[in-house]
Amino acid sequence: MLGRIGFIGLGNMGLPMAGNLVTAGYQVTGFDLAPASCAAAQAKGIAIAPTATEAARETDAVVTMLPAGRHVVAVWTELAANLGPTLLIDSSTIDVDSARKAHALFAGHGGLTLDAPVSGGTGGAAAGTLTFMVGGSQQAFALGRPILEKMGKRIVHCGEAGAGQAAKICNNMILGISMAGVCEAFVLAERLGLSHQALFDVASTSSGQCWSLTTYCPVPGPVPASPANNGYKPGFAAALMLKDLKLAQEAALASGASTPLGAEAAQLYGLFDKLGHGGEDFSALIGFLRGQAADEGHRHGL
Amino acid sequence: MLGRIGFIGLGNMGLPMAGNLVTAGYQVTGFDLAPASCAAAQAKGIAIAPTATEAARETDAVVTMLPAGRHVVAVWTELAANLGPTLLIDSSTIDVDSARKAHALFAGHGGLTLDAPVSGGTGGAAAGTLTFMVGGSQQAFALGRPILEKMGKRIVHCGEAGAGQAAKICNNMILGISMAGVCEAFVLAERLGLSHQALFDVASTSSGQCWSLTTYCPVPGPVPASPANNGYKPGFAAALMLKDLKLAQEAALASGASTPLGAEAAQLYGLFDKLGHGGEDFSALIGFLRGQAADEGHRHGL
Amino acid sequence: MLGRIGFIGLGNMGLPMAGNLVTAGYQVTGFDLAPASCAAAQAKGIAIAPTATEAARETDAVVTMLPAGRHVVAVWTELAANLGPTLLIDSSTIDVDSARKAHALFAGHGGLTLDAPVSGGTGGAAAGTLTFMVGGSQQAFALGRPILEKMGKRIVHCGEAGAGQAAKICNNMILGISMAGVCEAFVLAERLGLSHQALFDVASTSSGQCWSLTTYCPVPGPVPASPANNGYKPGFAAALMLKDLKLAQEAALASGASTPLGAEAAQLYGLFDKLGHGGEDFSALIGFLRGQAADEGHRHGL
Amino acid sequence: MLGRIGFIGLGNMGLPMAGNLVTAGYQVTGFDLAPASCAAAQAKGIAIAPTATEAARETDAVVTMLPAGRHVVAVWTELAANLGPTLLIDSSTIDVDSARKAHALFAGHGGLTLDAPVSGGTGGAAAGTLTFMVGGSQQAFALGRPILEKMGKRIVHCGEAGAGQAAKICNNMILGISMAGVCEAFVLAERLGLSHQALFDVASTSSGQCWSLTTYCPVPGPVPASPANNGYKPGFAAALMLKDLKLAQEAALASGASTPLGAEAAQLYGLFDKLGHGGEDFSALIGFLRGQAADEGHRHGL
Repeated sequence: MLGRIGFIGLGNMGLPMAGNLVTAGYQVTGFDLAPASCAAAQAKGIAIAPTATEAARETDAVVTMLPAGRHVVAVWTELAANLGPTLLIDSSTIDVDSARKAHALFAGHGGLTLDAPVSGGTGGAAAGTLTFMVGGSQQAFALGRPILEKMGKRIVHCGEAGAGQAAKICNNMILGISMAGVCEAFVLAERLGLSHQALFDVASTSSGQCWSLTTYCPVPGPVPASPANNGYKPGFAAALMLKDLKLAQEAALASGASTPLGAEAAQLYGLFDKLGHGGEDFSALIGFLRGQAADEGHRHGL
Repeated sequence: MLGRIGFIGLGNMGLPMAGNLVTAGYQVTGFDLAPASCAAAQAKGIAIAPTATEAARETDAVVTMLPAGRHVVAVWTELAANLGPTLLIDSSTIDVDSARKAHALFAGHGGLTLDAPVSGGTGGAAAGTLTFMVGGSQQAFALGRPILEKMGKRIVHCGEAGAGQAAKICNNMILGISMAGVCEAFVLAERLGLSHQALFDVASTSSGQCWSLTTYCPVPGPVPASPANNGYKPGFAAALMLKDLKLAQEAALASGASTPLGAEAAQLYGLFDKLGHGGEDFSALIGFLRGQAADEGHRHGL
Repeated sequence: MLGRIGFIGLGNMGLPMAGNLVTAGYQVTGFDLAPASCAAAQAKGIAIAPTATEAARETDAVVTMLPAGRHVVAVWTELAANLGPTLLIDSSTIDVDSARKAHALFAGHGGLTLDAPVSGGTGGAAAGTLTFMVGGSQQAFALGRPILEKMGKRIVHCGEAGAGQAAKICNNMILGISMAGVCEAFVLAERLGLSHQALFDVASTSSGQCWSLTTYCPVPGPVPASPANNGYKPGFAAALMLKDLKLAQEAALASGASTPLGAEAAQLYGLFDKLGHGGEDFSALIGFLRGQAADEGHRHGL
Repeated sequence: MLGRIGFIGLGNMGLPMAGNLVTAGYQVTGFDLAPASCAAAQAKGIAIAPTATEAARETDAVVTMLPAGRHVVAVWTELAANLGPTLLIDSSTIDVDSARKAHALFAGHGGLTLDAPVSGGTGGAAAGTLTFMVGGSQQAFALGRPILEKMGKRIVHCGEAGAGQAAKICNNMILGISMAGVCEAFVLAERLGLSHQALFDVASTSSGQCWSLTTYCPVPGPVPASPANNGYKPGFAAALMLKDLKLAQEAALASGASTPLGAEAAQLYGLFDKLGHGGEDFSALIGFLRGQAADEGHRHGL
């Protein structure tokens, strides 16, 4: 046995992550407000505690995986009041301010803290192939890395407290912008009578190349594994992209950064989500630009 | 000797392109309104004719390389009135409507026509490594390809008349959008205390990866060959990016395509250009977002 | 009888305008491609000619009221070839370039020309209360004004050739932007628990006052006559607002004017139109921002 | 004597407002961190206390006028800990969330609370002609209204806690959007050869009419009292408009309202401010759109 870990938040992401820690040999005690999540966790060999504090007590490290900054601050506040020095890792995707507040709760407390949001989605969580973007001290990172390596394949130390969250929202802002740009380019191509494949052939090997085009192409055909070939089933849901674009805008407003395309992308995904498409893959935005259901795009394959 | 080619437009791009045809063994007769360009062309072994028609007469193919759609339509109108059947190739970057008008001038005339805009800039023109995006019939493409191969290393047949221009503006719209997005992400990172290198390390291997980041990084450091390391000397001038973004917007308005981020990028480069930065590399937009001269960005290397 | 007028284009706007000329005592000969329009015109005492040239021949003035710039240029080209000197008035809303081309067709021809687009919609056309924004020489304006006064109540000479069209698209760009802004403010107010009436009471008497708010309020209640109180039946259809916003963007692109909010408004109305709402009043945009049918807004009256 | 009032925050706005209360017959005790402000207040007959609590003790009402939400929450927290039941009025312009937090500090405490931001600027504060947009209970409003009437001429009860702040940011979002729209329209008119006066004459009496045009016209000439005629000296500084547009965006992000033009206006004023123009009147944005200093606009008067 490698050690004891408390895991708070056993949802779609937290559960498979905690499961990978069990598989790796850790003794994991978990907590979640939802009874169904607790039952599923028990089936994976995770002990269930009645409170977050109980799950975290007498462990070598605590991992939190929660929906938003206010949840993380609430749980870490509870833990700071009740725990002695330990290692705390928050893998939620939250706003940078809350992440820094969470770190600060343990300043002078002797605890070591990391913000460590992930990319890779539920697929990566299940497969243990997540990327972790990590903020915190060198000492905390050294201690946390072996644990994170059981849940991911790429662990990047991005800087001090909050740097992990900052890296994630900056990356995902580029992603949201480039996906919208690629969708617009395909829609313009359709109107100009240029085939999807021809645009793909040119741009994928030229200055328009980007992950949104070459790995996650929003039209069916050129990249067989992309969600466009699977009825735009996520993948990465549009509602989650909107969440990250809004986190980026909140950080930009608070810090005074100019991000005109980031703002536009956030508005665009906001309108798309309001029309009821939040559960579709974020590449389904192309259908919104066309004014039609995304999967009608087949007709435009040309 | 391979054959005779007329070359209309011997400027920064046309001159080295025509020079490569001479090097390859073609007999080239050129025409340009600027005496200096004509003199420079003669120094490269290009014969100079007094008119476009004279340059084109009794050749196997004619190449035009001109500033805008109206010039191409004017020259091709002159040629259509004066030439017998031949192969016409326009390598200018112009609006799709003008490109199609130019093709149509030779419909029923027996001539074969190609729109074949390039990417790769003056460096690619000199080195003969341009990419050609080509629109026109299979027959015209088969005839033109050997000529284009003397001036470029990648020749892509994109579809019928106008498809070359369409592919270029769609690709460059993605490019302008993704560059703006990458600049915004670095500016946000600076405000959040995340280093340029940390953002690069995360995004270059993740879903934020794009040519604007990994080949042409707008901050000095991560990609040594990018213009950011050379005082934002172009490279690809902001004024040319603006030209292409405006061509995309004109096509989008005329064809009814929705391109909100493309419109925003066009506005942003328009404001940047109006402030006098059109001659800088298009990645210098990052300085505009910061409200400072682009090369002050060194101070933000963190 | 005041004189003879040829009237080309007898659609929703042209027919009542021509009818008002008949009522005022002019002898009007009309032409339209649609037989139904011709029949309706005859019922109003308008003689019908078999061609535009025949309708215009031996008249004192010709008025055109057509869908787009290409139609105006085509008809005026036909007239320039076939008519002696006369007064030509185009009341279509078209792009500034085409308007200037139309004027130029009669340069050196001895004819006097006016561009004279209208605001006021079909209601104003029927009531003879249109506003005319007029471009052309002082001499042409002096000759045209008595005719225009039979169809409208406000005749503004805006400047030389094209100035009427320029004034119209500049005004309507402000209109589209301010309506979108007012819709956004009501949607934000709803989310913040502020009632429609409270926002109206503050903004209508403060710095947020604008025609879109105080004459054409996009929520039911504060302004009883606004289309919001009538199920968003136009009024001024969203598709027509989109047309004008696109004309403004085309002029901005061609002339090099920076119009970031104008571009955004054009994109927004474009997305709204693509979703099938072009036939609703342009104030129905508020429903799009909410992600619901516009007339569900009643529930938000608070 | 009407009663005793504590006044916290004696800056450019607070000082003249407190002075008007003295003039009206109130006994005012003030507090400010800046000694110069305290000295200026004493010269107006305002007693100075060493702390906020001391200024507020044994008064009938307390008014706060502070830069941002965090200051208001900090001061009200201090007061809630130290004062018995009283009437608290915050006239700062702050975010809606902080306003509601401030109200909540006195829930169950017996105190009555109002958020009551103003419009009218330093001129209106000095003249006692401010507009107050007020949120809070009917009881609190009834008690506060006589006090507010000594500092303003228009007192609007907008709704419950936070409604005053909500009304202000919604109104000012319309203002920022419409001013940007009017500036864009004048710039487009310049490029199309349409004179400022002609556009003003058309739009001021038509559907483009708005306060930004008819009261605060951003080009010199049509409205003699507007800052454009005075070298764009504020008036209402661009930095303050940016602050309000950012408050609107923060509220929109937190509440889930779609505000694409509001987002664009916030970005535009952000870029303008970063270039060093925050101290100019907010109508000086027109110079930024032109790519030149705003007062060079005279040359475009046409």
